[in-house]
Amino acid sequence: MNRRKQIAVVGSGDDRMEPAVSHARMLGELIAREGWAVVSGGRDAGVMRAVNEGAKKVAGSLTVGILPGPVGSVAPGVDVVVVTGLGNARNNVIVLSADVVVACGVDGAGTASEVALALKNGKPVILLAADETARAFYNRIGNGMVLRAATPQEAVELIRTVL
Amino acid sequence: MNRRKQIAVVGSGDDRMEPAVSHARMLGELIAREGWAVVSGGRDAGVMRAVNEGAKKVAGSLTVGILPGPVGSVAPGVDVVVVTGLGNARNNVIVLSADVVVACGVDGAGTASEVALALKNGKPVILLAADETARAFYNRIGNGMVLRAATPQEAVELIRTVL
Amino acid sequence: MNRRKQIAVVGSGDDRMEPAVSHARMLGELIAREGWAVVSGGRDAGVMRAVNEGAKKVAGSLTVGILPGPVGSVAPGVDVVVVTGLGNARNNVIVLSADVVVACGVDGAGTASEVALALKNGKPVILLAADETARAFYNRIGNGMVLRAATPQEAVELIRTVL
Amino acid sequence: MNRRKQIAVVGSGDDRMEPAVSHARMLGELIAREGWAVVSGGRDAGVMRAVNEGAKKVAGSLTVGILPGPVGSVAPGVDVVVVTGLGNARNNVIVLSADVVVACGVDGAGTASEVALALKNGKPVILLAADETARAFYNRIGNGMVLRAATPQEAVELIRTVL
Repeated sequence: MNRRKQIAVVGSGDDRMEPAVSHARMLGELIAREGWAVVSGGRDAGVMRAVNEGAKKVAGSLTVGILPGPVGSVAPGVDVVVVTGLGNARNNVIVLSADVVVACGVDGAGTASEVALALKNGKPVILLAADETARAFYNRIGNGMVLRAATPQEAVELIRTVL
Repeated sequence: MNRRKQIAVVGSGDDRMEPAVSHARMLGELIAREGWAVVSGGRDAGVMRAVNEGAKKVAGSLTVGILPGPVGSVAPGVDVVVVTGLGNARNNVIVLSADVVVACGVDGAGTASEVALALKNGKPVILLAADETARAFYNRIGNGMVLRAATPQEAVELIRTVL
Repeated sequence: MNRRKQIAVVGSGDDRMEPAVSHARMLGELIAREGWAVVSGGRDAGVMRAVNEGAKKVAGSLTVGILPGPVGSVAPGVDVVVVTGLGNARNNVIVLSADVVVACGVDGAGTASEVALALKNGKPVILLAADETARAFYNRIGNGMVLRAATPQEAVELIRTVL
Repeated sequence: MNRRKQIAVVGSGDDRMEPAVSHARMLGELIAREGWAVVSGGRDAGVMRAVNEGAKKVAGSLTVGILPGPVGSVAPGVDVVVVTGLGNARNNVIVLSADVVVACGVDGAGTASEVALALKNGKPVILLAADETARAFYNRIGNGMVLRAATPQEAVELIRTVL
């Protein structure tokens, strides 16, 4: 069997949140080039829209959107739509479905919950360009499962080391 | 945007349940030939294994397994693994993620819950080779959303009519 | 430890559904008199409202409403409000939280899903005044876990036998 | 209607985590004296066991345990057992069911996810004796919904101000 690795990319739903949104777009493209599937929260907003946009620049890419649903927008770049109907409890489904979780910044409570749930479920987490406050906090509770990257390229290198 | 339609195929996890398992294998192949994605419960058992096997006979097919997880087997034919960690509550995620739900028989309580949840969420349901008891029951509670098919081919024709 | 037994009462959210609603009111009272807690879907509608109304006629009764939420009405008789935010997946939480599940009729898809999920989770089910179609169906898939009662009094006697 | 306010108390499942466990025991007692219900994760461990123990020192107290389940221990002091079967997604149910969430320290990823989910769902959060790292992090993402207390008594005073 040759199933693709599944990389969750999480981050703010705010379109103006930079560098998170730009990082997500680049990360989507780089992940897709590796042949890995992109897992995200799937909404048509912020980091979720951008990571799927980036991935769809690559022919043969595969993107999975795990939505809070049952109603609401879906990012155009999502190939597989999983409608959970769980509200914010869907954040746990996102991280459980990932081999690694990359957070593009930790700029809001939703992303903070995804990082924490990933750690609780024993998933490796990469914080991409997170501020010092977030890094300090997650390092303390992360039992060595938290890595940090400054750029999308560096994040992809770290993903390789933990897969 | 050109997202694939998503067809959920549900049924028993018992490998000996016939004709459900054979029907599922054929249905997976026929759905994949239409270019639709196959959504299933994803476990390596019964109807779930068979529908994914069938779909993977078709080049370019796309299969999504929505697992109760977080641990447990995955059918080899599953491309995208969604690990819900929800136990049987994942049945609601399966039907919410589908444009149509096809039940290969209604031979156990899990499948019965999926058909009922599909109807509760307003999704069209096709009962494939269900016995008279199941058909009578779901017709009564189904508000006209329940269709019946005798063969996988007939099920696919019905899917086309409701998409 | 002396925790109360927890009895789930499920049924239609339609206020005009009789005898389900009247049965639920009586059942709530009888369950409360036994000192058992009443678990329900908690909405201010139909069987859910009635069973809590009935229970609150009894001093010292305890009622738990497990809501699809996060928004929506709560039946006035509910003591403990559990807001799941899960939509219809909350039906699985209702049955998992019960020692026995009593269905006041099986008049819609929501109730049908609760009975099926109860059986899938190995919980005993009592069908109170269900029609022949529902009884035939659940008897076939129920592995002997489905009992039937004609009146609320008879349902309470059956609850005692399975606790 | 006169439903009790519901106060969630969250924290580590590690019995040796101090002062979190001692604080939880005192907090349970103080909350119960106010006539509020105690909501917790319900397991027989750490902060969950302690807060229920504390509450049950008070006659007429009401305690609700919202468990990841479906199997596993229940703290002896829990009156109402809600078995979610959701794994860590149950953390979202805990906070949605609360009028206020009090964290006894933020010493692990589970508690961190509960605080983040509370904020995401717009619930006020009180951090009791949290370290500076946690306070700094949640203050940044909390939009003014995060309060801090040094003692259980102070936490109860803060609860009053936000109810």
